[in-house]
Amino acid sequence: MRAKLIVADSSRNSDLLWATRFYAPDPFVFAEIDGARFMAANALEIERAKKESRECEVLLWDDLVPKPPVSLSALAIALLRKLEASSCIVAPDFPAGIYQKLKDEGIEVELAQGVLFPARAVKRPDELEDIEHAQRACEAGFEKVLAMLAEAKIEGDRVMLGGETLTSEMLRRAFELECVARDCTCDATIIASGDQAADPHCLGFGPIAPNSLIVCDMFPRSKKRWYWSDMTRTVVKGKADMQARWLYGVVHEAQERALEMVRPGLDAEGIDAWIRAFFESKGYTTGAKDGVMQGFIHGTGHGVGLDIHEWPRVSKVKDQILEPGNVITIEPGLYYLGIGGVRVEDTVLVTEDGAKNLAHPPKTYLEIP
Amino acid sequence: MRAKLIVADSSRNSDLLWATRFYAPDPFVFAEIDGARFMAANALEIERAKKESRECEVLLWDDLVPKPPVSLSALAIALLRKLEASSCIVAPDFPAGIYQKLKDEGIEVELAQGVLFPARAVKRPDELEDIEHAQRACEAGFEKVLAMLAEAKIEGDRVMLGGETLTSEMLRRAFELECVARDCTCDATIIASGDQAADPHCLGFGPIAPNSLIVCDMFPRSKKRWYWSDMTRTVVKGKADMQARWLYGVVHEAQERALEMVRPGLDAEGIDAWIRAFFESKGYTTGAKDGVMQGFIHGTGHGVGLDIHEWPRVSKVKDQILEPGNVITIEPGLYYLGIGGVRVEDTVLVTEDGAKNLAHPPKTYLEIP
Repeated sequence: MRAKLIVADSSRNSDLLWATRFYAPDPFVFAEIDGARFMAANALEIERAKKESRECEVLLWDDLVPKPPVSLSALAIALLRKLEASSCIVAPDFPAGIYQKLKDEGIEVELAQGVLFPARAVKRPDELEDIEHAQRACEAGFEKVLAMLAEAKIEGDRVMLGGETLTSEMLRRAFELECVARDCTCDATIIASGDQAADPHCLGFGPIAPNSLIVCDMFPRSKKRWYWSDMTRTVVKGKADMQARWLYGVVHEAQERALEMVRPGLDAEGIDAWIRAFFESKGYTTGAKDGVMQGFIHGTGHGVGLDIHEWPRVSKVKDQILEPGNVITIEPGLYYLGIGGVRVEDTVLVTEDGAKNLAHPPKTYLEIP
Repeated sequence: MRAKLIVADSSRNSDLLWATRFYAPDPFVFAEIDGARFMAANALEIERAKKESRECEVLLWDDLVPKPPVSLSALAIALLRKLEASSCIVAPDFPAGIYQKLKDEGIEVELAQGVLFPARAVKRPDELEDIEHAQRACEAGFEKVLAMLAEAKIEGDRVMLGGETLTSEMLRRAFELECVARDCTCDATIIASGDQAADPHCLGFGPIAPNSLIVCDMFPRSKKRWYWSDMTRTVVKGKADMQARWLYGVVHEAQERALEMVRPGLDAEGIDAWIRAFFESKGYTTGAKDGVMQGFIHGTGHGVGLDIHEWPRVSKVKDQILEPGNVITIEPGLYYLGIGGVRVEDTVLVTEDGAKNLAHPPKTYLEIP
């Protein structure tokens, strides 16, 4: 009988977190064989693992490998032997050091060609509930950002709030405080204006540019069950010029039309290809200009769950057939130096006959006077 | 010439974050050869990588592997060939899928026996500054926790604050809000009382127990350069019984004496062994009691940096010779059902002739009336 094997820490390895529902900062060993799940925990974690893990038999390290120092590879080998596994299959991100030790020990190790747990891509109700919890926190945080932008006043080339120059950092902090108050954590919230908005993953720093596109890419993670949500809105404080407005219109239209395409049975790669063609047809080309990559320089979207970027992909990667229960983002964007950037993103659930948008905030072009 | 090779995302792989100083949520390819560093980024990240990475030549994926779809293993192979590397060395956590593909391609891949970048354990001034930034945030958050406990009143078996039952969740949220306001993020802050405190990594949930040990293990991560700090204090709201006070006294004494031992040239394993013997000598034994692991059921400490748990270890692992510039925790603890838990932890810098404690809050037994 072949076992699925994971050796990792579940704060960084989401397969392991998904399979055990046990969040821990240090590596442990997991195996699934014939539908039964086992994990080996150390003395520090064993009692918590017994209480908090789900559908998992918990074994103590010392019972598997009695003599210290205990290595993770020795534990993995001992667990496979105890379970009488004849071979094992591991994910491509399995640690090479342990992979080699298993092989040296004569254990047959197969590398999974795709994902180790395809079921991770189809969300259970409790997983969806947690994604929606993160999404509500995201929306509360974004409301705070909008309120600050509404209260602020433009003075020359600055946006002023309460006697201070309003910065990306101030808006990011306000957003994140709302999320933390709702038991979420935030990684690298993007609030970027001016030419910073033309670099899709630039976090944004310093003064908010008035009359300019402000990309707000917000992705809190719920601390209840560690699921993410992901939303981007692009707004303007003041009035942006016609080029910015056109850019917004094209991205917004692409996003709405892509949302309408989402349905089970579709290869998500087709959505990405359609958006690429749509942007080209409107004259918005992609490639290096003046030595800088510009245009639609990222994929259309990605699965969202315990990883912020997971399967299925909505990109150039083929064979991403959508199923009911998938949660994906649709987030086209266009980026040009001198104009700035626009990205519009929702997290949506694939349903039996289409999609349900989990994000509520409106997406019409938003100038905040 | 042999290259050091990493394929990972730097939001999860701290070797990569350390080598490039470039924080990104998706995998990219890095190689160091003869002291020169190179990374391959995609169109989405290339401009940001050029601006934000340090001491690293940035190449575009498309220039290395012109035909899509581009795989990470193809990129790694192309980068090694471009750099004319005759072989490569990877960390034990290198992804097995790519490791196997490199070998299949005939590339000689060595698995590092220890760490890939020993220099990571000796902190530069800018790294120390960021650890201290996180530590100051931690202290501000802890002050908030203490203020809430001071303001609260004991009513029967509850601790009440502002008409509500005070909970672990409320204290945790207050702590984390202070940290976020200081540009830090928090992972899994522990505020655990009663028997929850007897389980060292139990986050704590529900009502705070009065007249009971409350373990507060707080480890914010600075978002400036992504360094952590780590501090634990154990306090009591009200008055705990004599057993709890004794437990505190023994752990506190162990921690202070361990701090005095820290100096360059010492094998940190010796500190851990000393504490184990000290606890035993005081009658505090370790092992399963009533089917539950109790006593000193974790290591004495760990390095702190871009990872919350890194080298050097202060545990049963041998050959952890301390050097000036190491940043480590000293955090003995004792855990017994019926009494609860005590852990006292500081993050300290190893100096030329001893150690500098980076944590300021006092550690005398703290009953909050």
